[in-house]
Amino acid sequence: MLHDGKPGERARGAVSPRRRKFLRGGATALAGIAAGMAGPTALAARGDGGELAVPESMKREGAPVGGEPYGIPSKYEKGVVRHLRPTDKQYFSSSSRSPLQDLDGMITPNGLFYERHHNGVPTIDPAQHRLLIHGLVEGSRLFTMEDIRRYPAQSRIHFIECSGNPGYKVYGKTAAQANGLVSCAEWTGVMLKTVLDDVGVKPGAKWVIAEGADGAGLTRSIPLSKCLDDAMLVYGQNGERLRPEQGYPLRVLVPGFEGNMNVKWLRRLQVSDEPMHSREETSKYTDLMPDGKAREFTYVMEAKSIITSPSGGQKMRGKGYCELTGIAWSGHGKIAHVDVSVDDGKTWHRARLQGPVLDKALTRFRFPWNWDGAPAVIMSRATDETGYIQPTLEQLVAVRGVNSVYHNNAMTPWRIAASGEVTNARL
Amino acid sequence: MLHDGKPGERARGAVSPRRRKFLRGGATALAGIAAGMAGPTALAARGDGGELAVPESMKREGAPVGGEPYGIPSKYEKGVVRHLRPTDKQYFSSSSRSPLQDLDGMITPNGLFYERHHNGVPTIDPAQHRLLIHGLVEGSRLFTMEDIRRYPAQSRIHFIECSGNPGYKVYGKTAAQANGLVSCAEWTGVMLKTVLDDVGVKPGAKWVIAEGADGAGLTRSIPLSKCLDDAMLVYGQNGERLRPEQGYPLRVLVPGFEGNMNVKWLRRLQVSDEPMHSREETSKYTDLMPDGKAREFTYVMEAKSIITSPSGGQKMRGKGYCELTGIAWSGHGKIAHVDVSVDDGKTWHRARLQGPVLDKALTRFRFPWNWDGAPAVIMSRATDETGYIQPTLEQLVAVRGVNSVYHNNAMTPWRIAASGEVTNARL
Repeated sequence: MLHDGKPGERARGAVSPRRRKFLRGGATALAGIAAGMAGPTALAARGDGGELAVPESMKREGAPVGGEPYGIPSKYEKGVVRHLRPTDKQYFSSSSRSPLQDLDGMITPNGLFYERHHNGVPTIDPAQHRLLIHGLVEGSRLFTMEDIRRYPAQSRIHFIECSGNPGYKVYGKTAAQANGLVSCAEWTGVMLKTVLDDVGVKPGAKWVIAEGADGAGLTRSIPLSKCLDDAMLVYGQNGERLRPEQGYPLRVLVPGFEGNMNVKWLRRLQVSDEPMHSREETSKYTDLMPDGKAREFTYVMEAKSIITSPSGGQKMRGKGYCELTGIAWSGHGKIAHVDVSVDDGKTWHRARLQGPVLDKALTRFRFPWNWDGAPAVIMSRATDETGYIQPTLEQLVAVRGVNSVYHNNAMTPWRIAASGEVTNARL
Repeated sequence: MLHDGKPGERARGAVSPRRRKFLRGGATALAGIAAGMAGPTALAARGDGGELAVPESMKREGAPVGGEPYGIPSKYEKGVVRHLRPTDKQYFSSSSRSPLQDLDGMITPNGLFYERHHNGVPTIDPAQHRLLIHGLVEGSRLFTMEDIRRYPAQSRIHFIECSGNPGYKVYGKTAAQANGLVSCAEWTGVMLKTVLDDVGVKPGAKWVIAEGADGAGLTRSIPLSKCLDDAMLVYGQNGERLRPEQGYPLRVLVPGFEGNMNVKWLRRLQVSDEPMHSREETSKYTDLMPDGKAREFTYVMEAKSIITSPSGGQKMRGKGYCELTGIAWSGHGKIAHVDVSVDDGKTWHRARLQGPVLDKALTRFRFPWNWDGAPAVIMSRATDETGYIQPTLEQLVAVRGVNSVYHNNAMTPWRIAASGEVTNARL
């Protein structure tokens, strides 16, 4: 589909991984500080130019243990929050985005996991919550949360991405604005197959219709084959219970499928021989093609990647060494490789994937680069284990047009100006 | 060292994984609810015994998006917090413990990561923070956080465990009290080797002395070999910046070594030909043996495991199927396997390890069991990839005595009474 990368070719300014001198002349070089200092007091007393002063933090006790029984971030990180769209005036059917440009690794902390709700976040007492499984089953069953938690459990690390991430016309100034409707966590729950096998699915069943207990009563039809594969009923997120915004106390997880199908605040699973064609799968979440036909049931979030550092709104720290890093993911499985271009897509160079590389999970990539100070356009391109290659926006639009706001997995190019300012190259 | 487990033998009440009927008769069986319901309103209108009422949460909008820019747990989870020791009256040199019995998976959320401080939690402005590297180096260097963050980064999932987890005489009523000074996160930073190679270590160097910028000026000597192996300078934790309690803005990570060596609020690394013999490695953090000699520099946290559910303070949900689950870890590498006993250590049965099984990371194990309702003592035993087997407390005490409070990696047995109450079998 796309031209091949040239992994053997050295990028303009690419850094040999064998011997790098990253910061010589960058960090302050100190002369005259000898070995053998005996501790902070002695160190301050030496007065070798006062380069390493004894900070105030060493002169007194700190905050007591247990002051915050549930810990919170440093006050110096108060700007690292989920991003609302500046133009978004309504807050019940809306979204907030993970600050991708401030994050690293593969795990999204629960407090920064993206949100998309259709009628706000309901407050649900888990002791009162019930899940009904009915329809084409041997007998309808009503489950308490304790019932669900009694099943054998499983934890898996998977991403969830909104199908409208980022839309086709919303280009975004920052990585969060451009692609922040994706996050990744370690989920704990029970394989849905375990529960359905226990309930007993009748012959003829082909779909499972999931309904949320929120004010939108969000309802989606999930193919039974997915429910019997890697779908889960999850109640845990990064070790603790689900957050309210992620469906507390119970959600469906359909790894790799579009976010809205991972129905939150799950109250009902109806096993059926046909899909529901619910509001959310007819008036919304279909993809209108250029010929006026709509694609329905386009579940899988295809391979995608974005460079998160440097990215829009950031500034280069000057010429020289700079690690390009970002995230890649695919709803079809594992990321096979990520290529990076520093010349607006003319040539491509293989990035390093950081392990563990997991099925349908965010995968961090890193690429060493020496910026020569000239203007440049950088971007990344993911390939998944099926061989699928992330397209450019132009390639995607040529096939799908611009009627739909869903399933845009195009590359995000960032422009670096001679000043070091980084902006979205599409704006 | 220990008698072998018998993985092929079925535990008393062990469940065949092929076909289980977990909850038949447990969850409420419903009759008369047909397929084909059209939505929540229709569902309520059917009135099939009113079993699945329409909850209040479906009748109105929920909380708006972005009400909490940094998300927090559900109000129904307010009891899931870090545990202070009930008897601990002083809060500056103290600890709080991860609520292991409420957690699942391998990742500890940042708000519940255990704490151990020697003089409280300092507040440090990252823009003002400096790291000095000096001693047996080609030239002393003073780093800003921006300097550190410019190096090529790496994320790795590792546990950290306090060497005093749990002590020899502190048995604890709950899993948190018994072994809650261990947590696991995805850390991001730079390999310390990268920085030391860049600075240039002089011949004769054998140690690196790390000093924290807290009110205790905590100082530990780390073998240079560890610093050139898998040690890191970390600034990220589960995707976001380090939490203040974990050393914001910078700490040393020495995977598998006792917690206090992972020096927080790191301000100084002194490369030396000999260790510091600092306060924390002479008056504390040595292991006094029965013959009156003290073992110094006992770094590695050896293989350990604990069943977290069911565990002390919990109650069995009745006879029948119950998944035993817990965590295992080793400072020497990966967990090879975990054996579980449900008869006070007489016989052993292989548990299932949940992937990914990573080097020096918490590993979740699970074991299906049918409790017959009779009193039982359950426990787990970890074996790591070096072949080392977790000992019983009796075996450990026979060798090391009870003078030291450190490096107790003995098994934790839980007693299940006929009433279903679970207690620490040592109390």
